[in-house]
Amino acid sequence: MSGRPSSPDGRVTHPVPDLHPLPVPAPPAVGIVPGGTWTTVAGTQVGVAQGDIKGNKKLRDDVAVLVAPGVAAALTTTSSAAAAPCRWTRARVPGPVHAVVVNAGNANAATGAQGHRDTAATAAAAAAVLGCPADQVLVCSTGVIGVPMPMQRLLPAVERAAGHLSADGHHLARAILTTDLVEKEVCVELDGVTVAGVAKGSGMIHPGMATMLAFLVTDAQVEAPVLQALLADAVDRSFHCITVDGDASTNDTVIVQATGQGRPCPEGSEAHAALAQALFAACRHLARAIARDGEGATTLVECVLHGTADDATARAAARAVLRSPLVKSAVHGRDPNWGRVVGALGAAGVQGLDHLDLDLCGIPVLRDGQPVAWDEAAASAALQAPEVRFTARVPGPGLGVAWGCDLSADYVSINADYRS
Amino acid sequence: MSGRPSSPDGRVTHPVPDLHPLPVPAPPAVGIVPGGTWTTVAGTQVGVAQGDIKGNKKLRDDVAVLVAPGVAAALTTTSSAAAAPCRWTRARVPGPVHAVVVNAGNANAATGAQGHRDTAATAAAAAAVLGCPADQVLVCSTGVIGVPMPMQRLLPAVERAAGHLSADGHHLARAILTTDLVEKEVCVELDGVTVAGVAKGSGMIHPGMATMLAFLVTDAQVEAPVLQALLADAVDRSFHCITVDGDASTNDTVIVQATGQGRPCPEGSEAHAALAQALFAACRHLARAIARDGEGATTLVECVLHGTADDATARAAARAVLRSPLVKSAVHGRDPNWGRVVGALGAAGVQGLDHLDLDLCGIPVLRDGQPVAWDEAAASAALQAPEVRFTARVPGPGLGVAWGCDLSADYVSINADYRS
Repeated sequence: MSGRPSSPDGRVTHPVPDLHPLPVPAPPAVGIVPGGTWTTVAGTQVGVAQGDIKGNKKLRDDVAVLVAPGVAAALTTTSSAAAAPCRWTRARVPGPVHAVVVNAGNANAATGAQGHRDTAATAAAAAAVLGCPADQVLVCSTGVIGVPMPMQRLLPAVERAAGHLSADGHHLARAILTTDLVEKEVCVELDGVTVAGVAKGSGMIHPGMATMLAFLVTDAQVEAPVLQALLADAVDRSFHCITVDGDASTNDTVIVQATGQGRPCPEGSEAHAALAQALFAACRHLARAIARDGEGATTLVECVLHGTADDATARAAARAVLRSPLVKSAVHGRDPNWGRVVGALGAAGVQGLDHLDLDLCGIPVLRDGQPVAWDEAAASAALQAPEVRFTARVPGPGLGVAWGCDLSADYVSINADYRS
Repeated sequence: MSGRPSSPDGRVTHPVPDLHPLPVPAPPAVGIVPGGTWTTVAGTQVGVAQGDIKGNKKLRDDVAVLVAPGVAAALTTTSSAAAAPCRWTRARVPGPVHAVVVNAGNANAATGAQGHRDTAATAAAAAAVLGCPADQVLVCSTGVIGVPMPMQRLLPAVERAAGHLSADGHHLARAILTTDLVEKEVCVELDGVTVAGVAKGSGMIHPGMATMLAFLVTDAQVEAPVLQALLADAVDRSFHCITVDGDASTNDTVIVQATGQGRPCPEGSEAHAALAQALFAACRHLARAIARDGEGATTLVECVLHGTADDATARAAARAVLRSPLVKSAVHGRDPNWGRVVGALGAAGVQGLDHLDLDLCGIPVLRDGQPVAWDEAAASAALQAPEVRFTARVPGPGLGVAWGCDLSADYVSINADYRS
């Protein structure tokens, strides 16, 4: 097949003045610390243990304790079925926090009043070993919904994890996996401020807050309310912009702890700006890693939308495109069926689509709402890459970027019998 | 395995006063006309033709003309990328309508100004043969987005279809299929009012209006604005309650034509009530048929939600449950993982979930927000049925019923390379 441009129906409908690809925003400029992980930040320790929380006798690290005495901020799921640990955590941030307990294998969601008692007991067990108030221990759980937490196995595991702390953060990234295939960790540095993080999540990913667990830590010296505001902004532009399957979880949680052993970051300072940028970069890195590791996924998909009323509208619409099973299936099949992107933008209610410009992997396919001659062979070839991008433009000052993945038959296999 | 009730973790968390299954609303009471189809209604005719609209030389009926001189009402997609034929149709209803032209193979969406000219030319071509004003011909298209309509093939096919009318409505149901596996048609009768309909749709099904094409017809003598109101109400409780993949289409259209050759149905009359009930029954039948025939689906899934502020809220939440890929995958795997239903209700923002009652195929699994002892073997067995039901109850006066289907690997195969 030649590279000669041709329209899908063999004709060009109108002459087009400008077929340059649409612009793509640059990623944040920060230094990545090679091999860095959560414990790269000074003053932090982690402990892990095998709790057999799922009760299937497959022994693996499934309980972790993250110690970073200082302050913390957090965002938890917006689900009205928020799990007990999410409600415990959100009642205690922003504020002084010593440690975080996390378990895989059981979500402690839809577990009634007993679930709340179990979360409090979990925090108390860790606090007793660590020598801090139970109110300074946050709790995160992930796993099956609607099954009472097996406290007879969880509590001893929490005590073992809290009693054997080390500076090896890589254990942590492994301990919080469920159906994840790869560990997700990052450490970035900017202007003397270090931010590190780990995350888990590969299904039930469509953050109504953040649809997964992510643990960030920084050495910055920062007040808890300031940290909370910085986290909210970073999450809006990172975890809130990813989708794997459109399902918000009952247990989504993003926590950032700050040890205060590093640079003071008062509001308005250069250091504060560096912290904001570094925190966003770490969140963006982890969010993209979650999308790339979506259940059954083979391709990271990015959608850039220029226009709409504001950035938040553009981000939501870009994410809606990547939520579409039809768009996701087309990417999986390497089918340059860009009409489905238009369909998804329309279903999301984006205004001004009569003037839509659209690029598929940098190849213009639609200008001012009209199909243009495009090189289908080049588009099919571009779709073979491990990262695929749709770039769209409608009238308006907004700009949004979202990340997702393709939909494969493996997604169905993974989720058809999750519990066994 | 015995049928003895046991909780997932081998313990019962609290005693439960009432473990009767939750109630399920009865379907509307109407008479189904055996073998009835669109042309069972007096005064109607259809014509079909092979247009090779997709341009792949696979000859099949892909153009149809539906003649029912009288008045019509219609609802079209809420997508902001609404296709040219949807905009043409919505500008002409409610009002006098002679016929509807429909084609498969090309959606005439994202086709710019040329798309609007093509729709007008299509209506004019049919009108010239039928001897009516072009403004009394509605147009519906379904198929690939972003490809100019091949008018050199469409127009002759429209003329052939309009020129060879017959009373064999079964041709019609076949002509409008794309990835559908089964024809969807129904004819109901109540108190001397007849309503018949055909529909297509199996993917891109999540009505922002109705996410598919459905053509209804009645012999009722009714004014166009009254018919429009009746259609809007029936669609709210039928097509708006189904979801296959959460994608609203650019081309969704439901049209009802009324020939006026039957009973007068003035507002407030018994006949009006019968028309309302019959129209709802026909819409409900077709909507369920679309959900059952969802791309790759093996199971019709019904979600009944008692409670929430009002019926509309309950319907939207019930549909959100059936949109969840995790719920759909679990049904496909016959995995009684009802926690995912709780997760989906929470993601939909349903209030009062701390007091949630939930049944899985009539088996109580949650009462007042607490897991109860349930018979997992019986639940797994119930999930083998061709129809599966979740019934939920939260505080509030609303009631909603929605229909969907499971998510299979075949869905991905069907959509990974739709265009070829």
